[in-house]
Amino acid sequence: MPELILHQDPRSGNCYKIALTAALLGMPLRIRNYEIMRGETRTPAFLAQVNANGRIPVLQIGDKFLPESNAACWYLAQGSALVPGERFAQADVLRWMFFEQYNHEPNVATLRFWLRFVGQANLSEAQAAQIPAKRAAGDAALKLMDEHLAERAWFVGEAATLADIALFAYTHVCEQGAFALDGYPAVVAWIARMRALVGFVAMES
Amino acid sequence: MPELILHQDPRSGNCYKIALTAALLGMPLRIRNYEIMRGETRTPAFLAQVNANGRIPVLQIGDKFLPESNAACWYLAQGSALVPGERFAQADVLRWMFFEQYNHEPNVATLRFWLRFVGQANLSEAQAAQIPAKRAAGDAALKLMDEHLAERAWFVGEAATLADIALFAYTHVCEQGAFALDGYPAVVAWIARMRALVGFVAMES
Repeated sequence: MPELILHQDPRSGNCYKIALTAALLGMPLRIRNYEIMRGETRTPAFLAQVNANGRIPVLQIGDKFLPESNAACWYLAQGSALVPGERFAQADVLRWMFFEQYNHEPNVATLRFWLRFVGQANLSEAQAAQIPAKRAAGDAALKLMDEHLAERAWFVGEAATLADIALFAYTHVCEQGAFALDGYPAVVAWIARMRALVGFVAMES
Repeated sequence: MPELILHQDPRSGNCYKIALTAALLGMPLRIRNYEIMRGETRTPAFLAQVNANGRIPVLQIGDKFLPESNAACWYLAQGSALVPGERFAQADVLRWMFFEQYNHEPNVATLRFWLRFVGQANLSEAQAAQIPAKRAAGDAALKLMDEHLAERAWFVGEAATLADIALFAYTHVCEQGAFALDGYPAVVAWIARMRALVGFVAMES
C-alpha cells in the first residue's frame, strides 16, 4: 500500500474516525495538521491540491486524495472485519454511517464546535437561532442509538464495525456540546466497550 | 433474493435513487407509498416496524428493513458495475455519496422541499432565516460538481456508478428549489448522459 497521510485537525471527530480505524487495523498513518479556525483548509493551494471542498479530513494515498471521513475509513477497512462482507450487513453498516453524517454530525458535532471552539457569544444570529433545533435533533439521534444498543452490543452484527467507529467519534465527546449522556445508558455502556477494543487510541482533545 | 419493497414518497429524490438503481440493474421492486406531509412515516406502527427514525425511503428485503437511501442503493448494487471493486474507486464512490448527503441534499433538496411542497409562506421563521445559507451552500455544491465534471464524463472512473445516481436525484430537479442550472454546463451535459443510460427511468414528479 502507498504511504498514507491524514490531513487533519486533531480536535475534529471526523478526523479522529480515520485515526481510530487505522489504529484498530494496525496501519501506520502520517499526520499533517491544519488549523481550520485560521482558514488553513481554504487556501488556494489546499483547494487545488487536497480538497476542492475546503474541508478536512482528507486521506492522502500516495498521490491520490480522498475527502469525506467515512469514505476514508472505508478505504482503510475494506476486506477487514470492520466491513462485513455479507450483503445486508455491509449495507447496514453504511446505513449507520449515513445516519451519522445526516442526523448526528450536523447536530451533535456542530453544537460541540459552536459551544466549545467558537464560543456562544461569537455565534452569528442565524447560528444561535438554530441551537434549539440542533439540540432536539441531536438528542433524537442519541435516543435512537440508545434504543438500538439496548438490545445489542454493537450497531451491526456481533463485533465492532465502521458503524461503531463513525458514531463513536462525536458521541463520546457530546458533553462538550452540552448533551447529557446520563439519559442514554446503553450508549454509555457501548462507549466503554469501544474504549476496550484492542488497539484503541483516544482522541487528542 | 427475497422480495424487495420500497417504502417511499414518489416526490422524494432520496426514494427515486433506489428506484433508479433497481431499474438500471433490472431488479423488480414493489412500491408502498406514504404521504410524508400527512405524517404517515411518524405513526407508531411505522416507527416500530419500518424505521425508528421516522423517515423514508426504507428498502424492505424480505423481513429486514434498510433505511438511508444511499445504503439501500448499495445493497442493490453490490457486485455490479455501479460499485467498482477496486479499492480506491470504491471508496471514491462513497466519497461522493457522503458529499451528497452532507453538502448537497440538506441544501438543494431542502430548498426544493420548502419552496415547492411546503410553500415559502408556510415556512417557520427559523426555516426562512436559513434560506440564504442553504442557497449559498447548494450553489457551492453544484459548482464543485460542475468543476469536477468539466474534465470527466462520470464522477468516478469511466462509467456511471452509484455516485452519479446519488447526485443526479436532486440535481436534475434543483430548479424546483430555484437553483439555476444554466451556470453549470458540465452538470447539464452529465444530466443528459444520465437520461441516456440503458434502463433509465424518470422521477415521477
